[in-house]
Amino acid sequence: MHCSPFGRMAVSMPTDARLLALEDIATQLRIDSVRATTAAGSGHPTSCASAADLTAAVFFDAMRIDPDHPRDPVSDRFVLSKGHAAPLLYAAWAAVGVVDRHDLTHLRQIDSDLEGHPTPRLAFVDVATGSLGQGLGVGVGLAMGARFAGTDARVFVLMGDGEVAEGSVWEAAEIAAHAKIDNLVGLVDVNGLGQSGPTMLDHDMRAYQRRFAAFGWRTLVIDGHDMTQITTALRRATRGRGAPSAILARTVKGKGLPGVEGLPGWHGRALSAEAAEKVVAELEQRRHHLPPPPVRRPRRRPQPKPTVTPLGGSPPAGEQATREAYGHALVRLGEADPRVVALDGDVKNSTFAERFKERFPERFVESFIAEQNMVSMAAGLAAQGFVPFASSFACFLERAADQIRMAGISRANVKLCGSHAGVSIGEDGPSQMALEDLAFFRAIPEAVVFYPSDGVSTDAAVQLAAQRKGVVYIRTTRGKTPALYPDDAAFTVGGLKVLRRSDHDRVAIVAAGITLHEALAAHDELATAGIAVRVIDLYCVKPVDAGALLDAGRACPRGIVTVEDHYAEGGIGAAVLEALGESGVHVHRLAVREIPRSGSPKKLLERYGIGRAAIVTKVRELV
Amino acid sequence: MHCSPFGRMAVSMPTDARLLALEDIATQLRIDSVRATTAAGSGHPTSCASAADLTAAVFFDAMRIDPDHPRDPVSDRFVLSKGHAAPLLYAAWAAVGVVDRHDLTHLRQIDSDLEGHPTPRLAFVDVATGSLGQGLGVGVGLAMGARFAGTDARVFVLMGDGEVAEGSVWEAAEIAAHAKIDNLVGLVDVNGLGQSGPTMLDHDMRAYQRRFAAFGWRTLVIDGHDMTQITTALRRATRGRGAPSAILARTVKGKGLPGVEGLPGWHGRALSAEAAEKVVAELEQRRHHLPPPPVRRPRRRPQPKPTVTPLGGSPPAGEQATREAYGHALVRLGEADPRVVALDGDVKNSTFAERFKERFPERFVESFIAEQNMVSMAAGLAAQGFVPFASSFACFLERAADQIRMAGISRANVKLCGSHAGVSIGEDGPSQMALEDLAFFRAIPEAVVFYPSDGVSTDAAVQLAAQRKGVVYIRTTRGKTPALYPDDAAFTVGGLKVLRRSDHDRVAIVAAGITLHEALAAHDELATAGIAVRVIDLYCVKPVDAGALLDAGRACPRGIVTVEDHYAEGGIGAAVLEALGESGVHVHRLAVREIPRSGSPKKLLERYGIGRAAIVTKVRELV
Repeated sequence: MHCSPFGRMAVSMPTDARLLALEDIATQLRIDSVRATTAAGSGHPTSCASAADLTAAVFFDAMRIDPDHPRDPVSDRFVLSKGHAAPLLYAAWAAVGVVDRHDLTHLRQIDSDLEGHPTPRLAFVDVATGSLGQGLGVGVGLAMGARFAGTDARVFVLMGDGEVAEGSVWEAAEIAAHAKIDNLVGLVDVNGLGQSGPTMLDHDMRAYQRRFAAFGWRTLVIDGHDMTQITTALRRATRGRGAPSAILARTVKGKGLPGVEGLPGWHGRALSAEAAEKVVAELEQRRHHLPPPPVRRPRRRPQPKPTVTPLGGSPPAGEQATREAYGHALVRLGEADPRVVALDGDVKNSTFAERFKERFPERFVESFIAEQNMVSMAAGLAAQGFVPFASSFACFLERAADQIRMAGISRANVKLCGSHAGVSIGEDGPSQMALEDLAFFRAIPEAVVFYPSDGVSTDAAVQLAAQRKGVVYIRTTRGKTPALYPDDAAFTVGGLKVLRRSDHDRVAIVAAGITLHEALAAHDELATAGIAVRVIDLYCVKPVDAGALLDAGRACPRGIVTVEDHYAEGGIGAAVLEALGESGVHVHRLAVREIPRSGSPKKLLERYGIGRAAIVTKVRELV
Repeated sequence: MHCSPFGRMAVSMPTDARLLALEDIATQLRIDSVRATTAAGSGHPTSCASAADLTAAVFFDAMRIDPDHPRDPVSDRFVLSKGHAAPLLYAAWAAVGVVDRHDLTHLRQIDSDLEGHPTPRLAFVDVATGSLGQGLGVGVGLAMGARFAGTDARVFVLMGDGEVAEGSVWEAAEIAAHAKIDNLVGLVDVNGLGQSGPTMLDHDMRAYQRRFAAFGWRTLVIDGHDMTQITTALRRATRGRGAPSAILARTVKGKGLPGVEGLPGWHGRALSAEAAEKVVAELEQRRHHLPPPPVRRPRRRPQPKPTVTPLGGSPPAGEQATREAYGHALVRLGEADPRVVALDGDVKNSTFAERFKERFPERFVESFIAEQNMVSMAAGLAAQGFVPFASSFACFLERAADQIRMAGISRANVKLCGSHAGVSIGEDGPSQMALEDLAFFRAIPEAVVFYPSDGVSTDAAVQLAAQRKGVVYIRTTRGKTPALYPDDAAFTVGGLKVLRRSDHDRVAIVAAGITLHEALAAHDELATAGIAVRVIDLYCVKPVDAGALLDAGRACPRGIVTVEDHYAEGGIGAAVLEALGESGVHVHRLAVREIPRSGSPKKLLERYGIGRAAIVTKVRELV
């Protein structure tokens, strides 16, 4: 990808000519979007057309872009929240000169990075979009990140109107206002038409305005096809003044595409070659044939490079809850690495993220009870070079399942810690128990899943998470557990630890977290009865050490027993089975197999068959 | 559970006495909440105390309750969205006479249904709460259900202020106003204190009012401890007038509990026995010793019983996409069963839910792009006796993962259809591909997961889903697939079909959906090379027919090959492994093992190793 016909001329233009030049860019974006989607035979040309004028103005009148480093912290950022308008985004970057215009017609082909919806395979995309309603939260994170980094970079988020129905948009809106994120501009392309019919609010611009205003935003309602209004609004919106700004633009779907403009039934449909040719011919007629305005560039100022120092202190020692060890480990990490930031959703006293807040209040983001947005903000912060650790109860992180899915696709460098896993939380009952989180997180591509069992292994999980690029999940336990490892024990991504072994082990018990301690107790009880069992700490649930598991399965004639404080589907048992499925090793699984109740942790572990007694019974059954 | 000391007297009271009597009830609710949590040694007494006055008034001044049938369609409903105030809810139902007051101190014990957070193990609970921000959406569904059923029942939802930060609240708010749900009253207990600190909006009552008003609600701001204001507001709020009403009540956390009232640091902490005794003694001093106001009862009118008729028509025939078959099947079901309602999130032309909308517009709920709320509304509709089918792209249903988790805990009778599964959707790219949905849905307790491969089996999945109580997930495919089954083929929950078999099969291929057709093609190609393979349609992915899989595994010397358009973790391969893990049968898995790209369906199936060529290669490797 190299330079487009539009250069980067540093000429100044009179206002009228400038507006006409911006209109020319918008025309080009429309032409490119139509051509690309028609070449692909699919895509969303009408969704591109409604936002073409807004996008032209953002890129060529508002944003300060370094085309060679579009994701530098000093560069303004653009998030296409309405990811289905991807051809418009690609066309805009072609206009800037970052994408080769000739590549645009390779849209959606298997060998092109110009995918159906944007992903960070492209250098100018911060996070994958296409699951609607996520861009504004990412934008808040990017804007916070710019502020943390001390730059004056701004963030522009282009939303569709349909996606504003997503609650995640309002989670982002409320915190942006609360945190006074005034380097953020949200643009809503109000074309009134969703995929399958009119949007909920149609063209009720006042309703949009009331809502954003009520959520603490400065609001500007404009005609989204009037370049004077657009550029004026962008200038006002980027003036900051302590609040984020929303530009609410009344638009027409398919604007400028004769034959489809304003018509329903044209969402996600490419034009035929013939129709496209006609449309392009008509668009060509609208050109003013002016040179493009120059791309504005950020002022490049010396940026202090964050200095990562060697880890100090020592891992948390003695009996304690792994959730508490998480807080300790995070502080330890934060002292060494200034890029580390922490987020929590009003449970920081339970997840122990509060330890980080106490030590580094300036690097802590209270995200309140809005987990979806917490994860989106984390993805935005990661895209500015920070290493965000976001925590909540493990079950409540599932609230952000779709955001985490998209973080996976984005390869976002986001670390998530879920506390209070499983029935062992006790009396609070099933609504507070994560029992399906391992199944979910294991299925996130490239994600790493840790499930530590004591302070030292929790500390290792946190440090390894920071070193690893991409999504990492750490599952912690509510109750206190004894120390298992010396300070200098070594852990790895994809490792496990054999905690008890003999030459005559009959069964290998594979466990992690709370059940590992039950397995150790079962080991001791079985030992007194002369039954030797191996005990394995599967502290890394994904990836697993398949070789070591196979060794254990082959060494123990009665096979493997997995024990997990998780439902029977998709968790530790499944991870072991997936690793050993081709081997013929017998794997027996103890897991929670019904909807649990409130009760004491000890009673619940026994009742649901994952406590020491159940393990002993199972092993006796097998030997 | 039987009658409480508060009877159900049908006396009329003068207004002043009535207010004092309501205050007495509130005092009793506080006493009960303190006693219960102190007995349990955990719980949230201060969160109960802030809402005690509101709750007393809702139960004894506003609601029309049939204590013998609290969930009858003519009864008003109460949803405790702030589920951590469960002791308050239990105390209120004790005051009504539905819970035995002596049972209240068994709170959170393993043999008590009075769990830490409410679940429908209790006859008066519609859905489990405790994951915040979900109650209002359920309330919208309940209120819609009352309207569909033709009753004049109203729904009251009590929210905490902290949870109003959840976007799902605003999804519920926007659609309630859009659909003019005026039999719904939302109460927000604005005590200003979250779990770990002040809420985002603290006591900014005007901000709450602006937001609900902007979202189209009638709003009333009151002192939540002034019984005159509360009862007046409730009277106004239940007058309807075409919009839902929000009562925004300024309260004090721990109100009426001397020593903790208004103090931070008291979230989720029970009082010591000594402190509780002191508090109860002081509360006792506040009693006016008036008889409780009578419980208001709904007018019982003859309700038309829905008549379910035998299924007419025939299943969809010929080559077609299973998503299209879903639409056909849903109409067929809807014709026979008037309880069936459909919901969709602005993709009805893609999921084919539009077929149902065209046929039964009065039973279709356009939920717009707000999947969390769509699932919550479905749970509310189910709690009114309807059989809701909610559909979206499978990946976007994951947006509602936490709502689905809670639906599982609630045993809600909710049916979900996720279309566009897997890489076989093609050019739209990874953001639109569900590749982790089977892992997620399989881990929902008691859920059934169908993955049909043609029109007839899709029809069967829909019909079986309606017959089955609880959460059922149906995964459909974007592209057209050939017909496999005759109209009269029989399918069951937990069944499978052996489509190709011989006495000398070397390998059994287990697949479903798009990959089943690839497996059949591979079968034919292998047959020409003299290699016999069995082909199994695992149309029900949960529960699986473990016996039949074991038979296949034992009959085929080279074991089983699973093929799935899903990531390698937690899907069909894992389901087969979990069923066969103890057997020693070798299971080989073909699945998507990297983040996919845009491209043609055919190219993607091959590139990610789940197409016919990959199957043939794998089988050749094994034999």
